[in-house]
Amino acid sequence: MKIVSDNRILIVGLGLIGGSYAQALTSLGYEVYALTRTPSTITYAKENGMIKDGMTEIDPAFISSFDFVIFSLYPNALFDWMKKFHSYLKKGALISDVTGVKKSIVYPIQKLLKEDDIDFVASHPMAGKEVYGVKNADKEIFKRANFIVTPTENNKEENVKRIEELGKILGFKNISRLSVEQHDKMIAFLSQLTHIIAVSLMNCPDSLDYQKYTGDSFRDLTRIANINENMWSELFLLNKEELLKSIDNFSSQLDRMKEYIQNDDIEGMKEMMRTSSSRRKEL
Amino acid sequence: MKIVSDNRILIVGLGLIGGSYAQALTSLGYEVYALTRTPSTITYAKENGMIKDGMTEIDPAFISSFDFVIFSLYPNALFDWMKKFHSYLKKGALISDVTGVKKSIVYPIQKLLKEDDIDFVASHPMAGKEVYGVKNADKEIFKRANFIVTPTENNKEENVKRIEELGKILGFKNISRLSVEQHDKMIAFLSQLTHIIAVSLMNCPDSLDYQKYTGDSFRDLTRIANINENMWSELFLLNKEELLKSIDNFSSQLDRMKEYIQNDDIEGMKEMMRTSSSRRKEL
Repeated sequence: MKIVSDNRILIVGLGLIGGSYAQALTSLGYEVYALTRTPSTITYAKENGMIKDGMTEIDPAFISSFDFVIFSLYPNALFDWMKKFHSYLKKGALISDVTGVKKSIVYPIQKLLKEDDIDFVASHPMAGKEVYGVKNADKEIFKRANFIVTPTENNKEENVKRIEELGKILGFKNISRLSVEQHDKMIAFLSQLTHIIAVSLMNCPDSLDYQKYTGDSFRDLTRIANINENMWSELFLLNKEELLKSIDNFSSQLDRMKEYIQNDDIEGMKEMMRTSSSRRKEL
Repeated sequence: MKIVSDNRILIVGLGLIGGSYAQALTSLGYEVYALTRTPSTITYAKENGMIKDGMTEIDPAFISSFDFVIFSLYPNALFDWMKKFHSYLKKGALISDVTGVKKSIVYPIQKLLKEDDIDFVASHPMAGKEVYGVKNADKEIFKRANFIVTPTENNKEENVKRIEELGKILGFKNISRLSVEQHDKMIAFLSQLTHIIAVSLMNCPDSLDYQKYTGDSFRDLTRIANINENMWSELFLLNKEELLKSIDNFSSQLDRMKEYIQNDDIEGMKEMMRTSSSRRKEL
């Protein structure tokens, strides 16, 4: 299946993920164009063979020349872009995104596009690095990662399949379909909660005192504690409801263990550890 | 500095850590003997050149022939052994351990040994694996690890130096001295709390639902969730006071982040993330 018949793809926002998409799609023979804020990003991406060309200005003629557009912007920037410029997108175009939250993004944008005959099939490449920007782009980050497509009833099945195909050709290990609600519940637990735990751990005053003694376990739990505060604060607030539920679920388990320790309840502690061990072995 | 003038060392308890000590010390030219529960452990260790010889029976003549003994037992087993057999240890001997908690172990055992003219200089090799037993022994695990010596006023400075020397020749990256109180506070935060977080995370019902989607961050946070419930339940209870304080400190930070999210307090969230990022970069 070809994602787009004329092979031309526009990527809006050429950061780490947009740049990695560009790298991968160019290497597959697509003609990749970019729309991004900074001229030096375009220069870098052209010089490094990641894109054919790019622009930093909003040019309706340029934007409307694409049948397929991928938005690689932070969630609020994506929503702002759509509010201002959605009418420039080509009628009949297929668009997707890379946003880490779905419910609060997908429905409002689909509503905005209602009269436009544009199909927004949302997706989430669950890949990243602790570094940012096009200069750190690296298509290899997709190899071990999951690609989630989150169709709604507004999407055409044919286009959902084209976005699944996008995940495949980008080299993702697993391609899955989830509803936007399932996606947000899953991401609250697996990704947002884990980042909140890491950040909370680093904010304990003790983390300053014991740097000399940190071993593998502390390093593992805080690897993701070096965090982009602009992106993650947006993601947390846009998935507030599910995230608060995840934090509460985790806190209950933490309190349960605390109570066992307080009460010298060895059997209770061991039961939690056995559950933990057997589930971890299945991973 | 030589740890022991006649080069003979007894290791009591030949599991993962005891076996790794035996492997390292034999390779350095020491004559290593073992006292352990299972005959097959002795056979295996002899056949693999880890020890010169070993016994499974308590033989006062054997035990009292050593000037230097390392106990590699779980904390409660160590304490039981001492209560029953401490009088068999040679007068003037130097002994050490590998226990992961100190205050609740070191003072009671030193009290027990008061009339014996035996110097118990406690130490904690902060190394391990998720697997157990002599067959998984591997002296390489010490290379990136910390070795903590926890002297008390009952110890002779000369013997404290000998135990520091032990850490050095075993190949540990860092050798440090801490009071038993400092040690237990540090270990509560860096090691025990992190294990409790991982176990609590795996006990959330969501951990069953989303196995298919787990990415690097969830894997990192739960690597240590496959846990030996017999050893860790002992360690947690023997360091109860410090551990409960660490859990409470962490819970406060988690609650703080939760409140920021509830109140859409973006600046509060970002401040925690900036603290987290800058501390993590220093690690």
